[in-house]
Amino acid sequence: MELWFTEEQTDNVRFSIKVKEHLFTGKSDFQQVDVFDTDEFGKVLAIDGLFMVTEKDEFVYHDMITHVAMATNPQIKNVLVIGGGDGGTVRELVRYKGIEHIDFVEIDGLVIKASREYLPITACGMDDERVDILVQDGIEFIKGKENVYDLIIVDSTDPIGPGEGLFTYEFYENCKKALTENGILINQNESPYYEGNAKEMKRAHKKIKEVFPISEVYQYILPTYPSGHWLFGFASKKLHPVRDFKPEVWNSLGLKTKYYNTDIHVGAFALPTYVREMLDSE
Amino acid sequence: MELWFTEEQTDNVRFSIKVKEHLFTGKSDFQQVDVFDTDEFGKVLAIDGLFMVTEKDEFVYHDMITHVAMATNPQIKNVLVIGGGDGGTVRELVRYKGIEHIDFVEIDGLVIKASREYLPITACGMDDERVDILVQDGIEFIKGKENVYDLIIVDSTDPIGPGEGLFTYEFYENCKKALTENGILINQNESPYYEGNAKEMKRAHKKIKEVFPISEVYQYILPTYPSGHWLFGFASKKLHPVRDFKPEVWNSLGLKTKYYNTDIHVGAFALPTYVREMLDSE
Repeated sequence: MELWFTEEQTDNVRFSIKVKEHLFTGKSDFQQVDVFDTDEFGKVLAIDGLFMVTEKDEFVYHDMITHVAMATNPQIKNVLVIGGGDGGTVRELVRYKGIEHIDFVEIDGLVIKASREYLPITACGMDDERVDILVQDGIEFIKGKENVYDLIIVDSTDPIGPGEGLFTYEFYENCKKALTENGILINQNESPYYEGNAKEMKRAHKKIKEVFPISEVYQYILPTYPSGHWLFGFASKKLHPVRDFKPEVWNSLGLKTKYYNTDIHVGAFALPTYVREMLDSE
Repeated sequence: MELWFTEEQTDNVRFSIKVKEHLFTGKSDFQQVDVFDTDEFGKVLAIDGLFMVTEKDEFVYHDMITHVAMATNPQIKNVLVIGGGDGGTVRELVRYKGIEHIDFVEIDGLVIKASREYLPITACGMDDERVDILVQDGIEFIKGKENVYDLIIVDSTDPIGPGEGLFTYEFYENCKKALTENGILINQNESPYYEGNAKEMKRAHKKIKEVFPISEVYQYILPTYPSGHWLFGFASKKLHPVRDFKPEVWNSLGLKTKYYNTDIHVGAFALPTYVREMLDSE
């Protein structure tokens, strides 16, 4: 018998992987959560039938969502992570000794539970004593916060379902208020390749650009996401991710990473012309 | 009725696209050639069941295989293209007025024929008067050539079947002899992500590095190739693709491109740490 898991990346495109074992399935108030074991990708976490995390390439995502901001401002002390219930973003953050506190706000306790049980590779950072795990809605959590966080990471799913409110003007305005003067906002900024993702990519960037004086977009290659071509947004009131970047400071920390390095930090902001044009057209 | 075309990217991974019409199928002495029409990718050329060219993203491949070399040395006059029977590489080259002659050597006339009929988007450059189309084996063609070409582009399939001899020491040595003093060799250098591709990536780079004093690798994102994370090699006797690069010269040419630009020229050489380590380990 062969078991295959298929993600419908668009109505016309399917990505399928051979499964050794369907380890977990569960339904929360928010979404369907599944964990598979596979030969090619190791353990795979899927939400509502979409690949979220695989043991083979989670390092790409978690390196790029954390280290670009941390290397731009190594003085970051107080961090808010919204989403990212698998724990991979928190795991990378707790490697920085200078970070004093992390509020880790995930709306769906089932994602945390499934990750703790089946994905210790990403969940392992959650138990660090500087991390407060708050199972609640990040949209509500951030309301009213002022001048608190040096870094906010929005580690969200697509803007459908629980992720939707994380792609609004109101949310980005609240992030701006919650950030300190040198604060940085990193957001999951979708993909330029398939039409549905590209539309959300443009919408998110347009909104953030209107809220923040500095708003850049950088790319990374994640083979298990549709097209493999994905983006994060970097927004701030003052710091620029390339002009204010001091590679020697980050390199002096001696952190070993599999994807991120100080060359790719800069290289990731060099976008293909068609992506640049899509972003500028909004 | 629904028609789907599936590429087996590895034994455990399948990429499937919905097909409107199977426009062409044919078998040459070398390989199986198919053309599909699709909603998502436009026309698609497949060889031996593998995606080669799609109308949607061929520009990524053809921009990156030509413009990096042409921008490093805008004085290039005489070019050899081996493979690339779809014509996309030649199409980008003939946009340069400074190029005087292109020898376009493709082993399989059926690929040229199918491309001329179904993919005018890539085949359109073949009729430029500076292009000599030679339907023969590039491995034999290059033997004995000395100090002839300013640029050799090896636009090959994977090192299986007719592409295999394009990944040997002997071939790379012959390329070196055939190049002028400032000559550049660009080769299709596989992918770091899936094991089979990564093995060939390392082998090709190891050989080229031993033959050429300058040997670098750069990346591009091609969603219809396995993992989307693909590489070209840049080798030469003298010119370095970043240190000898003068962006203002290329920008003054006023060529419009959809993927390539002078920022991504530099950014593409910034490789993820794990890819850098794989390449250096050989």
